[in-house]
Amino acid sequence: MQETWATSAGLDLHLEMSGAGLRASLESALREAISSGRLTPGTALPASRALARDLGVARNTVVDAYGQLVAEGWLAARHGSGTWVAERIRPPVPAVVAQPPAVQPLVRYDLRAGVPDLSAFPRTAWLAAARRALARTPAAALGYGDPRGLEPLRVALAGYLSRARGVAVTPERIVVCAGYSQALDLICRALGESGASSVGVEGFGHHAHSRIAAASGLQLSPLDVDEHGVVASALTNEDAVLLTPAHQFPLGVALHSRRRREVVDWAVGTGRLVVEDDYDGEFRYDRQAIGALQSLAPEHVAYAGTASKSLAPGLRLAWLVLPARLVDDVVSAKRAAGMLSSSLDQITLAEFITSGGYDRQVRRVRLAYRQRRDRLVAELARRAPQVHLTGIAAGMHALVTLPPATREQDVIGEAARRGLALEGLSEFRTGTQQRDPALVVGYATPPAHALSTAIARLCATLNVTT
Amino acid sequence: MQETWATSAGLDLHLEMSGAGLRASLESALREAISSGRLTPGTALPASRALARDLGVARNTVVDAYGQLVAEGWLAARHGSGTWVAERIRPPVPAVVAQPPAVQPLVRYDLRAGVPDLSAFPRTAWLAAARRALARTPAAALGYGDPRGLEPLRVALAGYLSRARGVAVTPERIVVCAGYSQALDLICRALGESGASSVGVEGFGHHAHSRIAAASGLQLSPLDVDEHGVVASALTNEDAVLLTPAHQFPLGVALHSRRRREVVDWAVGTGRLVVEDDYDGEFRYDRQAIGALQSLAPEHVAYAGTASKSLAPGLRLAWLVLPARLVDDVVSAKRAAGMLSSSLDQITLAEFITSGGYDRQVRRVRLAYRQRRDRLVAELARRAPQVHLTGIAAGMHALVTLPPATREQDVIGEAARRGLALEGLSEFRTGTQQRDPALVVGYATPPAHALSTAIARLCATLNVTT
Repeated sequence: MQETWATSAGLDLHLEMSGAGLRASLESALREAISSGRLTPGTALPASRALARDLGVARNTVVDAYGQLVAEGWLAARHGSGTWVAERIRPPVPAVVAQPPAVQPLVRYDLRAGVPDLSAFPRTAWLAAARRALARTPAAALGYGDPRGLEPLRVALAGYLSRARGVAVTPERIVVCAGYSQALDLICRALGESGASSVGVEGFGHHAHSRIAAASGLQLSPLDVDEHGVVASALTNEDAVLLTPAHQFPLGVALHSRRRREVVDWAVGTGRLVVEDDYDGEFRYDRQAIGALQSLAPEHVAYAGTASKSLAPGLRLAWLVLPARLVDDVVSAKRAAGMLSSSLDQITLAEFITSGGYDRQVRRVRLAYRQRRDRLVAELARRAPQVHLTGIAAGMHALVTLPPATREQDVIGEAARRGLALEGLSEFRTGTQQRDPALVVGYATPPAHALSTAIARLCATLNVTT
Repeated sequence: MQETWATSAGLDLHLEMSGAGLRASLESALREAISSGRLTPGTALPASRALARDLGVARNTVVDAYGQLVAEGWLAARHGSGTWVAERIRPPVPAVVAQPPAVQPLVRYDLRAGVPDLSAFPRTAWLAAARRALARTPAAALGYGDPRGLEPLRVALAGYLSRARGVAVTPERIVVCAGYSQALDLICRALGESGASSVGVEGFGHHAHSRIAAASGLQLSPLDVDEHGVVASALTNEDAVLLTPAHQFPLGVALHSRRRREVVDWAVGTGRLVVEDDYDGEFRYDRQAIGALQSLAPEHVAYAGTASKSLAPGLRLAWLVLPARLVDDVVSAKRAAGMLSSSLDQITLAEFITSGGYDRQVRRVRLAYRQRRDRLVAELARRAPQVHLTGIAAGMHALVTLPPATREQDVIGEAARRGLALEGLSEFRTGTQQRDPALVVGYATPPAHALSTAIARLCATLNVTT
C-alpha cells in the first residue's frame, strides 16, 4: 500500500491507497479515516480538484468517490458549500464481542450420547448422489420449495419408512424438517394453536425437547419410566405425549408390547396424540427391529425420524409422518416462518435412498455400532463388573447403573480428570422419579481408533470411584 | 406374488406371500390382513404348527413371525391360550390427505417478483466447491454445529461483506440462518424477549415478514414510503424498524442519503434497532452499489443478507451481522429450537466464496439481470408508453405505475387469461398509504428463452387494459 500525504487548507489527510481500483481505494480510505475518528464530523474536505492534484488522480475519481460517500451517508455536500464529514459517524466496530466460552476441561474422549461417529459419514457416496441428483433435478426444485418438503424425497421416504420401520405412510403425510427439534417445534406449535395445554414427557429425556414443548406454552407432565418403558397407566388428560418407544432415551429400554397397546388405547380412546421419536430405530442388534408404534394407530401417532444418527446431524434432515388431521396445521406452521430445509440436501437424500445407498449406509453403521456395543459389554464385564449395563439391545447408548452409594458427579469428575467426557442419568431427569445413580454412555462418538482407549478410561474411572 | 389359502379351525386366511424373506412376508401379510379388517380384533390365529403346515414353511418361521407381531402390538399371546389379534387395530391409512391445492389458472410466464432465474444456479461449480469443501473439512464439522454457523463460513462472509457491501463486520458478529425468514424470526424473538412491543415496517412490503414480526408479539407500525424511501421522520417510539434500504421492496427506490442519516440518527438517539434487509444489494446497474446502511451505525443496525437471489432460494443460506449487544440473544434463540443450517451447504458456500466462485456468480447474474432490465425498459417504452416504469436502477424487480383510473385486478386478470402471472402493488400494502395503481414486475424468474414472450404478453395485457 502506498502512503500519500495530502495537505489541503491546513488539513492533513493520511490516505492509504491499496492495490484495488483508485476510486474504490479512495472511498475505503475516506471511510476508514472517518470511522476511526481521524476525520471528525463537520470537517470540511478538500475541493475535488485540489485533492485530485494532491493525490495525483483524475478529478472525476475524487468527484465520484465523494458522490458515493454522500450517497452512503458518510459525507454531506451542498452545491457551492463543498463537502464535509457528516454528523453521527460511529467509531469502528470492536472485533471481539461474543461471550467467551465457559472454560472447559480438555475432552479427549467423548462417551456422551447423542452424536454418531462423524467419520462414518459417506462423503464420496453422498457427493456422488448429489451429482446424480443435481443432474436430473429441474431448476424449479431450487426455488422456495414445498413446505412439506420436495416430493422426490417424500416419495423415497414413504417407501423406505414403510419397508424399514413398518410405518403406515403415504407421501402426503410426510413433512420434511430441518432436524428433530424443528419437527417437534412444529407439532407443539400446531398443538398449542389448537388449544392443547399439556404434554406428557418421559421422566428421563432430553431437556432441549422439553423446552421446545414449553416454548409453545405447553405444560410438561413427567411420567415415570421403568424397565418396560413409560408407565402408560400414568397418562390421564395430557393433550399429547412424547415417547421414544424403540429405545428409550436415556434408559435404553424398549417399550413393552403391552405398554405400546396401552398407549395406543389411551390415544385412541381420548382422541389425543402420541409423538414417536424414532431417533435410532434402525439400530437394533439382537433381533429384528421393532416396527414403529405409529402403525398401530396412524391417526393418533405422529412419527418422527431423522438422518442425524445414520448420516450426520449436520445434514439437518428429519421427517414427520402425521395423522391426516395434523398435516395442514403443521404445514402452515412450517410455511409461516419460512423454515424450509435445503433443497440440495433433500434431493440428494432422495437419490441416496432410491439408489440403495441409504440402506447400505444403515447396514454399515449398524454393524459398526453393534461391534462397538459388543466391545463395551465385554470390557465392562471383564474390568468393571461392579456396574450393571442395560439398554444394550439397540441404538448407540447404554445405561451403566452404578452401586447405590455412588455419586454420579464423583464419577464424572474423575473421568474429566482423565480427559473423558461422561453424563449422568440425573442430568436427564424431567420430573421427580428417583433411580439408582447411573451413567448414560454413548459409544458412537469416538473415532474407531479411539474407542478402546475411551472404554479403558471409563473402566479405570469406575474402578477408582465405585 | 404367490397366493396361498390357509384354512385352519374354519378361518380363511388369505395371505399374499411376496418375494421377500418368508418370515418378513408372513409378517407383512398378517399386518395387512389385520389392518385391512380381514382379521378382526379377538380373532384367534392358527397354532404355529398348523399354519406352518398349511403354508409349507418351517414352524419356527411362524413362531418368529407371531413373536414379532406380538412385540409390535398387532397380536396378543398367552402361554397355553394361543395367539389372537389384539384389540384396537386401526383401519389402513387413507392415501390422500392433504387439502387439494386451490385451482390455479395455468401460469406459463411468471413476472412476479421474488424468485431469481433458477436455471442460473451454477450446478457444476457448486458441486466442485462441495467436493473440495468435503475433502478438507474435519469430521467434527458434520456434527450438531455452532449455532452461529460454521466458522469457515463466517470468516468467508466477513471478508466478502466488508469488501462487497461495506458492512462493518467481524466473524463473531455473524449468525448464519436458514433463510431471511429465519433471520428475521430470530431477531424478532430476541426483541420480544427483551421487552420490545412494536416494530416499524415500510408501508409496502412482504406480508410474510410482517407476520413473522407479529408472531413474536410485536405490533406493526406501518410507515409511509415515497420516492426517497421510507419517511424516516414518521419514526417515533417503535422499538425497531424493518427496512429495505438498497432497493425498497416493492417500490424499488433507494433510501436517499438524507433519509439514511435520519434513520441512523433516530436509532442512535433513541437506542433502537434498524433491521436492514439487503436482499439484492449486490445487483445495482447504473452505478456502483450503495454500501450497507449498517456501516453508519454497526451497533444499531442488524444487517441481513442472503444467497437466495444470487444463488438459489433452495439453499436456505442467509446471514445476520449483529450489534454486539444482540449476538448472545439471537444465538440463544437459534440454539433453543435447534434451527441450524445444513453443515454441508455452509462449508460449500465458504469454499465457494473463498475460491472466488461467489464473486464470479454475482457478476454473472448481475450482468444477466441488467440485460433483462434493459429489455424490459426498452419494450415497455416502445410498446406500452402509457405506463411509468421506476425502481429500475437495481435488483430484479421494478414498479410499473398504471394510469390512475386503472384497476390492478383488471390487469392481473387479463394477464392470467394470457397465462401470465403478475402482482399488484396493493397486495403489498401493510398500512393505509395510498398510491397510484401499479404492478410489481419481477424480471428474473422466467428462463432466458421465455423472457421476451413474457414481456410481450405484459405489453399486450397493458395495451388492452390501460
